Amino acid sequence: MAFLFNSDATRGAIFKEAFARELPDLEFVGQGQPVDPDKVRYLLTWTVPGDIARYRNLEVLFCIGAGVDQLKQDSLPDHVALVRMVEDGIIRMMQEYVTLGVLTLHREMLAYRDLQKQSAWQTLAAPQATARRIGFLGLGILAQAAIERLKPFQFPLAGWSRSKKQIDGVTCHHGPDGLADFLAETDILVCLLPLTDETRGILNAELFSQLPAGARLLHVGRGPQLDQTALIEALDSGRLAAAMLDVTDPEPLPADHPLWHHPKVAITPHIASVTQPETAAHSVIENIRRHRAGETLIGLVDRTRGY
Amino acid sequence: MAFLFNSDATRGAIFKEAFARELPDLEFVGQGQPVDPDKVRYLLTWTVPGDIARYRNLEVLFCIGAGVDQLKQDSLPDHVALVRMVEDGIIRMMQEYVTLGVLTLHREMLAYRDLQKQSAWQTLAAPQATARRIGFLGLGILAQAAIERLKPFQFPLAGWSRSKKQIDGVTCHHGPDGLADFLAETDILVCLLPLTDETRGILNAELFSQLPAGARLLHVGRGPQLDQTALIEALDSGRLAAAMLDVTDPEPLPADHPLWHHPKVAITPHIASVTQPETAAHSVIENIRRHRAGETLIGLVDRTRGY
Repeated sequence: MAFLFNSDATRGAIFKEAFARELPDLEFVGQGQPVDPDKVRYLLTWTVPGDIARYRNLEVLFCIGAGVDQLKQDSLPDHVALVRMVEDGIIRMMQEYVTLGVLTLHREMLAYRDLQKQSAWQTLAAPQATARRIGFLGLGILAQAAIERLKPFQFPLAGWSRSKKQIDGVTCHHGPDGLADFLAETDILVCLLPLTDETRGILNAELFSQLPAGARLLHVGRGPQLDQTALIEALDSGRLAAAMLDVTDPEPLPADHPLWHHPKVAITPHIASVTQPETAAHSVIENIRRHRAGETLIGLVDRTRGY
Repeated sequence: MAFLFNSDATRGAIFKEAFARELPDLEFVGQGQPVDPDKVRYLLTWTVPGDIARYRNLEVLFCIGAGVDQLKQDSLPDHVALVRMVEDGIIRMMQEYVTLGVLTLHREMLAYRDLQKQSAWQTLAAPQATARRIGFLGLGILAQAAIERLKPFQFPLAGWSRSKKQIDGVTCHHGPDGLADFLAETDILVCLLPLTDETRGILNAELFSQLPAGARLLHVGRGPQLDQTALIEALDSGRLAAAMLDVTDPEPLPADHPLWHHPKVAITPHIASVTQPETAAHSVIENIRRHRAGETLIGLVDRTRGY
């Protein structure tokens, strides 16, 4: 029985050491190393490899990232379980980035960046956190973890998800019928949705028009969820006051794209949260243990809904 | 018996309403309103007024700000108690700003700001929070409150203060002998010291040379604590990687000052934390109640040390 590690050698070395220590009976096969395909039960990868059919006994495909939208799920045999990455490192980094992004937008740091460029010492109005409503589009593991870090600041917290959820201290909305009410009461919108056919292009002019005037956007989902032209129009008209984007479409954002130099936009190059090999190895090992024990896998993708 | 409010009318209206509700027996006198000086027992102000000698029965001077360095304490009669502002609004804003500043420096947001200016999509190294040591210069009420917000992120936390302190989860150093050890293990230095003769110019070339190479500075103390020329030299030589300044010397920072356009510097115009009239009124009322009951005042300044 073998585990095939289809990713870079640097991370591979860290995984290999953890596997040798915690799963010594499982053969660990690094990228490009020879292996009897019939022995491969587990595969860790970013995309489905072209020769997936070789691994006739494959049972679980572990995605190395938190999102699985880049994975062509149609090319994966139906009997293979698909697991996205849920690990402490990704969660911690997302908690940092969302807290940073919300505070950046709450405390007008993009406007102050612009004032600094003009050598202008000027104080801007500063609503209290209790008057700044934060709304999460998407209430999965990462959003819920980020919410925990925001709670002590006393922001009113709300969220919207496809199916009904209940989260302590968070006003939860759900389904298509719940979206308008959610948006009407959101001053800082945090997008942490998975990319699916339903969420592609969801951040568009119509959605922006449902937010209070002067709302702000923190986008940490996936680039294709955002209509970038509509965003620029909403910022220029004043409907939105500022946006911080960690994802764009395409990535990298082309050098001549107007978003780069928009005074109300901050861009980071998809660095909000990155899989950390030490904690990711631990997470995969724990899931293999669960798989062998017949327990539910953490991060198991529902392939009918795609995330 | 009267309370003299020597500050702007907008805040005055909020104070007046709170006093009418909670201390109806105390005469509230707004700025510029006539008053029998002998009746004034309490005065709220930013600086000591020139006619302070008129108020022969003054017992407590409340400063409207958290720092009292702008107040010429020599001009205040010895028998008058001096109280700096300790109120929930100031504390909450400082918690926000310090968390924002630490995460900004931790997650390389000034370098990403510079990359955005160049339309460059480039990922920078990202140490985990557990490997980023945060050190507070000054461990007063505001620093301790900010530390509480940083704890969940798992940064190693340390602090330095003039006298010995003990704070749960924080490695505490103190006194002149403890400074070098503290600095040698600080990756992000947060200055929250009061301005006194001892702290004037404390952030200088010698101090920067004791920090690990590539350390970062978050300055939320007072402008004259920082040698701005030494800071620019330390940033240009690479000894320091970045700095975020909410205070400068002088304020406003002159439009032609090189700090404005330094790529490794973020400047905000002394907005980290501002007294919030609603919560401040509550805090002053509580202190008047304590004064009448003979209890210790919150925020009482030790006039021998000056803060």
